[in-house]
Amino acid sequence: MSGNMQLGQINLLDALASADLLRTFKRRQIERKTIIFTPFEQSNSVFIIKSGRLRVFLSYDDKEFTLAFLEAGDVFSTHTRAYVQAVEETEILLTPTSAFQATIESLPGVSLVMAKVLGDLLKNSITTIEGLAFKDVRRRIADFLVQTFEERGEESPAGVVVKLGLSTEDIALLIGTTRQTISLILNDLIKEEIIEKPNRRTLIVRDLAALLAWRDSL
Amino acid sequence: MSGNMQLGQINLLDALASADLLRTFKRRQIERKTIIFTPFEQSNSVFIIKSGRLRVFLSYDDKEFTLAFLEAGDVFSTHTRAYVQAVEETEILLTPTSAFQATIESLPGVSLVMAKVLGDLLKNSITTIEGLAFKDVRRRIADFLVQTFEERGEESPAGVVVKLGLSTEDIALLIGTTRQTISLILNDLIKEEIIEKPNRRTLIVRDLAALLAWRDSL
Repeated sequence: MSGNMQLGQINLLDALASADLLRTFKRRQIERKTIIFTPFEQSNSVFIIKSGRLRVFLSYDDKEFTLAFLEAGDVFSTHTRAYVQAVEETEILLTPTSAFQATIESLPGVSLVMAKVLGDLLKNSITTIEGLAFKDVRRRIADFLVQTFEERGEESPAGVVVKLGLSTEDIALLIGTTRQTISLILNDLIKEEIIEKPNRRTLIVRDLAALLAWRDSL
Repeated sequence: MSGNMQLGQINLLDALASADLLRTFKRRQIERKTIIFTPFEQSNSVFIIKSGRLRVFLSYDDKEFTLAFLEAGDVFSTHTRAYVQAVEETEILLTPTSAFQATIESLPGVSLVMAKVLGDLLKNSITTIEGLAFKDVRRRIADFLVQTFEERGEESPAGVVVKLGLSTEDIALLIGTTRQTISLILNDLIKEEIIEKPNRRTLIVRDLAALLAWRDSL
């Protein structure tokens, strides 16, 4: 699901207000940069963002992985393994999870919003896993690409063109990975408009600076 | 959210059938072990598991991360970055994602099931991220624990007791990580009933074999 399914927009705050369901929620105003919930949080509440912007992230020692930004109308829980921090001044409406069950039953649209938020978090979690699992092979692919373009690239109006003379399978063997992994990583670069792949054995670098920046970030 | 919120059970298949919404779905029977969808899937459909059991996993080279097992009544999409494989003979009901919008609107309970499935996937994704991000520090903690128990553990009916004489903060400094990371990892071991922490400076190993197996798995 995660982002591929258009979930139909509903304005949760308006819907809750007009169903008179907001009375049981407690308002809380949060200063910019405050970390409001951590994985060590004891309370088990659900909250809706009324205004502002929150960042949901995982943090391990010096590593931090942002999983989502929550905005007005989004729903989330205090009781997760993530940290929640205000990016700007933010107002939330809190209710105990046990009380929230009734809200879900009275207003089924709420679970659509939940599915949307969870889908976004899942999508970014998978990106994070790919980043961690692929770290080494990404670096080898980046080195291979940069080296190949430097050695054999030809300038053209579309960018630097390289006739690889190699299939994805050959590159995979060269780098010590699988065809699937090469495809996944090249697809990411294509989506980000850094490279183009007009046919099986040709690559075009559309944005060499971005390719170099990507390699140096690995 | 992810598993902490009891989402209220609905029997999606029954509900869809009685609302006469299953007619537009196409049945598909899948043999055990078949990989039915991959990240390279072109079609964009939603499916419901009618019977059997599917595994959703990420795969990178030789690494595989299972994110969920889907069972009868669960909903998922063909268009994700995960692989979907039949663990046993399975029957699914497929419909184009575009057509599924109407189903969601006619039967709001569907989005609750979606939220539940996404929550489970998210939970396991976070576990996977922790595993990847923590790999080295886990290993250092495991070594520290095993060594401490071997050197200073005292047998008791409850297990091997160790008076640490160290706070979590001291251990963190010793191992080169943060107090939060130590707490997260110790909490995992406590949840799995491998160790106990009756007070701040005492640890009990309830299952030494499990602790050793855990260390060797890292």
